[in-house]
Amino acid sequence: LEIGTGSGLLAMMAARLGARQVTTCEAVTAIAATARAIVADNAFTPPVTVISKMSTGLEVGVDMDERADLLVSEILSSEFLGEGVLASIEDAKRRLLKPGARIIPARGSIQFALFGGADIEHNIRVDQVYGFDLSRFNAIVPRKHYISRNDLNIELLSEASSAFSFDFAGTDRFPVSERRTIEVPVRQAGRCCGVIQWIRLEMDDSHVFENHPAIKNPASGWQHCAYVFPATIEVLPGQIALIGAARNRTTPWFFFQGFK
Amino acid sequence: LEIGTGSGLLAMMAARLGARQVTTCEAVTAIAATARAIVADNAFTPPVTVISKMSTGLEVGVDMDERADLLVSEILSSEFLGEGVLASIEDAKRRLLKPGARIIPARGSIQFALFGGADIEHNIRVDQVYGFDLSRFNAIVPRKHYISRNDLNIELLSEASSAFSFDFAGTDRFPVSERRTIEVPVRQAGRCCGVIQWIRLEMDDSHVFENHPAIKNPASGWQHCAYVFPATIEVLPGQIALIGAARNRTTPWFFFQGFK
Repeated sequence: LEIGTGSGLLAMMAARLGARQVTTCEAVTAIAATARAIVADNAFTPPVTVISKMSTGLEVGVDMDERADLLVSEILSSEFLGEGVLASIEDAKRRLLKPGARIIPARGSIQFALFGGADIEHNIRVDQVYGFDLSRFNAIVPRKHYISRNDLNIELLSEASSAFSFDFAGTDRFPVSERRTIEVPVRQAGRCCGVIQWIRLEMDDSHVFENHPAIKNPASGWQHCAYVFPATIEVLPGQIALIGAARNRTTPWFFFQGFK
Repeated sequence: LEIGTGSGLLAMMAARLGARQVTTCEAVTAIAATARAIVADNAFTPPVTVISKMSTGLEVGVDMDERADLLVSEILSSEFLGEGVLASIEDAKRRLLKPGARIIPARGSIQFALFGGADIEHNIRVDQVYGFDLSRFNAIVPRKHYISRNDLNIELLSEASSAFSFDFAGTDRFPVSERRTIEVPVRQAGRCCGVIQWIRLEMDDSHVFENHPAIKNPASGWQHCAYVFPATIEVLPGQIALIGAARNRTTPWFFFQGFK
């Protein structure tokens, strides 16, 4: 079983790697029709079946002959939760997978670090411009930015921390929301603009993907998310920042709570 | 008169440069309130008055004592027309400006060129991936892209052309829509992905701003827009491409019509 067909690439890869039968589902009708044509273009045997439904609408006995042995999915947003991955995997485990079925990725987490640097600060905050003080404008601009420019130098002022982890293989029902305070040791002095967040995926026990800001990965659809603090904070090595991390089913959030 | 206050920067600059009275309007209430506070922070005399209305809701005798001598505005989107500049300036000329009032920018145009290059093509099209042919997916992806990465090498395969020009100072009523075929001489051989579009503004008779893709301007809010053709086209110097250009009140569009 695959959730979220898109171009059909993952389903076809699974078939090429030996899956006897691949059922894949796609909520957007035009995308499902295109994926079906792409699968035909690539002449697949054994068959890849594209079903034009959300996974929560799939029915064993109607859309698939039996429960699946393996779930593959790439329904992760830049902030991990945005495409409803938790609800989709919970539902699949309850209704569409055999007990003990393999799940790829098996586990994942929302990672973050403190960030700063004059280059990025200049792009996410406004202060003095041509002799005018515009700093009040910072109060009404968005607090969350997707970092789509990789020419901007972003300094990581702390080590990476994990905010929330999700064991897809081992958990049947995830908490609806979570909130915690995380101690983050400062590694480098600087003006901290906020938290930069990325994702880490453990495909199985040996393969990990992580779009860590310091790793130059080939282009992916995942962007780094910056959660900008209301004011810039001077940090020094040796300090331990207390970062509040919260999530609901579809969004994480980060805020500064002080120093330890 | 200014249309579109934002942070209040243009209005304060006008006051600093000697404007006796600046009336500026802002449709978003929270932004208008912030701009009013920023103007107070910067202690302006003569007064800058921020009015929390769209310009089409301003009334002479209520919001301003008399018609204005000068209009300043920055209500231009990356594709020039997206923020309703034509309707706003027509209305201001009819109701809010003195006859012969100066308008800054006085004129502007929507500029474009043919573009290609392996680097950008790889990011806007999909063909073979891990041995699978995904090319049908190109039929359902968006035809218009904002180019937000400036690390991608974009090759201009033609000289710049002007698609549509707008003389704000000299025109009282712009056509609702326009459509034309433009002859575009190819300058460089390559795989043409489509048209890249930018804006050119003549502030007055001597000051021009243009975010030409070959000019490294300081960061601005304006992005280059790529209008991707359904299929990539091989072009050669000496050929003259026939490019269809169309616009309505809020959007331009470009398409390939053949060679001359």
